[in-house]
Amino acid sequence: MGDMRYWSALAKGISPYVPGEQPRIPHLIKLNTNENPYPPSPKVILAVQGAADASLRLYPDPESQALRAAIAKRHGVKPEQVFVGNGSDEVLALAFLAYFDRDEPFRMPDITYSFYPVYAQLFGMAAETVPLEDDFSLPVEKLSGGTGGVIFANPNAPTSLAIGLDDVRAIASSTEGAAIVDEAYVEFGAQSAIALLSDCPNLVVVRTFSKSHALAGLRVGYAIASPDLIEALNRVKNSFNSYPLDRVAQAAATASIEDEHYCQNVLLAIVKTRESFLPRLEALGFTCLPSKANFLFAAHKTHAAARLQKSLREHGVLVRHFNAPRIDNFLRITVGTDDEMERLVFSLQDILSLA
Amino acid sequence: MGDMRYWSALAKGISPYVPGEQPRIPHLIKLNTNENPYPPSPKVILAVQGAADASLRLYPDPESQALRAAIAKRHGVKPEQVFVGNGSDEVLALAFLAYFDRDEPFRMPDITYSFYPVYAQLFGMAAETVPLEDDFSLPVEKLSGGTGGVIFANPNAPTSLAIGLDDVRAIASSTEGAAIVDEAYVEFGAQSAIALLSDCPNLVVVRTFSKSHALAGLRVGYAIASPDLIEALNRVKNSFNSYPLDRVAQAAATASIEDEHYCQNVLLAIVKTRESFLPRLEALGFTCLPSKANFLFAAHKTHAAARLQKSLREHGVLVRHFNAPRIDNFLRITVGTDDEMERLVFSLQDILSLA
Repeated sequence: MGDMRYWSALAKGISPYVPGEQPRIPHLIKLNTNENPYPPSPKVILAVQGAADASLRLYPDPESQALRAAIAKRHGVKPEQVFVGNGSDEVLALAFLAYFDRDEPFRMPDITYSFYPVYAQLFGMAAETVPLEDDFSLPVEKLSGGTGGVIFANPNAPTSLAIGLDDVRAIASSTEGAAIVDEAYVEFGAQSAIALLSDCPNLVVVRTFSKSHALAGLRVGYAIASPDLIEALNRVKNSFNSYPLDRVAQAAATASIEDEHYCQNVLLAIVKTRESFLPRLEALGFTCLPSKANFLFAAHKTHAAARLQKSLREHGVLVRHFNAPRIDNFLRITVGTDDEMERLVFSLQDILSLA
Repeated sequence: MGDMRYWSALAKGISPYVPGEQPRIPHLIKLNTNENPYPPSPKVILAVQGAADASLRLYPDPESQALRAAIAKRHGVKPEQVFVGNGSDEVLALAFLAYFDRDEPFRMPDITYSFYPVYAQLFGMAAETVPLEDDFSLPVEKLSGGTGGVIFANPNAPTSLAIGLDDVRAIASSTEGAAIVDEAYVEFGAQSAIALLSDCPNLVVVRTFSKSHALAGLRVGYAIASPDLIEALNRVKNSFNSYPLDRVAQAAATASIEDEHYCQNVLLAIVKTRESFLPRLEALGFTCLPSKANFLFAAHKTHAAARLQKSLREHGVLVRHFNAPRIDNFLRITVGTDDEMERLVFSLQDILSLA
């Protein structure tokens, strides 16, 4: 590091989140950041084109009313139950500020989305880290009963495993603070806790357009909760950035969520590919967790994951490896198109036969 | 308020920033939020259209390399001296976290951009508030000499007054912490502190595309500082949101900053309108501060500002009024097109003759 003379104590002390590689080399098969392999709805493209006009000189709607109304309609809730932000990462960060306190630790699993501990560090909050079960499933009892709130992903990342709504309800209803359920991957096979909102007044469901709507490039995420919980998020957001969603993103996300039919077909295609390639990876000697997400979490019986990742990269296939306790022998492989997955399998056959 | 049971102590305690009204009524003359009255460059429109493709499924470049290179080239600095964010509001918020500490108050003027005290409250920081001089100019000596950093806008908002580079240097070089200069309006008539970067290692210059580039709807701001200071901003940003700028905004802002010629013509037109309408407001009985921004700060000799704002609204003309000590008899009037300013003058003539 260089000169830190004018840095805050905070800036000196934090370890930032490291996102998956966004390579600038063309023709790589990108199975490392859980992007959707299919393009967004054609209506999204039209909406972006339609937003390309002189109105870009004007501030966007700070309350994103049209988008929030469309999200509310899609999920059968009221617009005042919807909060939108610059990707679910921003929504999650603001939710930490809105619901968790510095002097009361919140609970989270030890293996989960690695941005949660980064937010906690940024905001000076303490986490009670609860280990996943031996089979990597979420420890429902140990996540329950906290006094400072709880956050978990369902399906969990990077394990791909989901819990049922009874378990989500058990955790939320036994927690004294807010219960944040990160549903970034829910549409690929898990059940949404939105159905529990009337039972659980402390529940906050966080969603994203990045995966299911193929809009990672547009940065739109949202939260659904009671109007009172959403009001806390609005207060924090309006103390940070009044206009986090630009005009184009608002228009495009609105068009996307209104094109439910297109989105459902894309989801079905990805789930079909996942189910057909999971046994093929097993036939190559991998153990795959039963995924409910748009990625597979796979460990090879005899080959180390870090080496496999490196070899795959040399074959032009990017997958993600986490150098972390308990999961350092797993690869997280995004479900791509059938063609991309064929090339993954072909590369693995090559690597494993040479090794 | 409703039920705050699951709110953090922070959420319960904060008073959010209140942005200017974004009305949904058509045909209003909008002179209340300092938007640019002219459309963005035609090259921006083409860039937005060009970004409307299947690549929206992929995450944007988290480092915004093309945009940062274009900004660096425009200002004659290195790309590692440039940080970009979701509007200058996000850049400013992250700069507070990167450079200011909770236990060491920073300095700022009492009358300035009203988001600064909101950030301070959100992050639990204390400010040493320094009163503007009686003529509303920035109190250069009183802003100097602090140990916890300093932030001010040049030109200042909502006063429209600028200080020269010698004064900026005096403040920055006498301050122990970072010196953040918010140059949201600098291109309308003030000198940029970017010229001081080699003299002042603690200087951070914050800019926006919202005003001078007519891109308020796209949410792009940036900071220019030494590579070491920029690294602190990157750390904080990567602990909050890895991808704050979507693909469309990156492409459009790059096209805009590359079209310097268009931008300069727009700036000249706005300055020309400002200079021709300032005496016409004075002829109507207003005192106008000598503006270096794209707005006028004007008090009427006999008519109360709050009443005038209300009457103008009834005439379909929106201007901003701040119900705050010392400035509650001023109107902040954005410089629009000549036609819009004619309608403002016509409406004021009507209101003042009836009153």
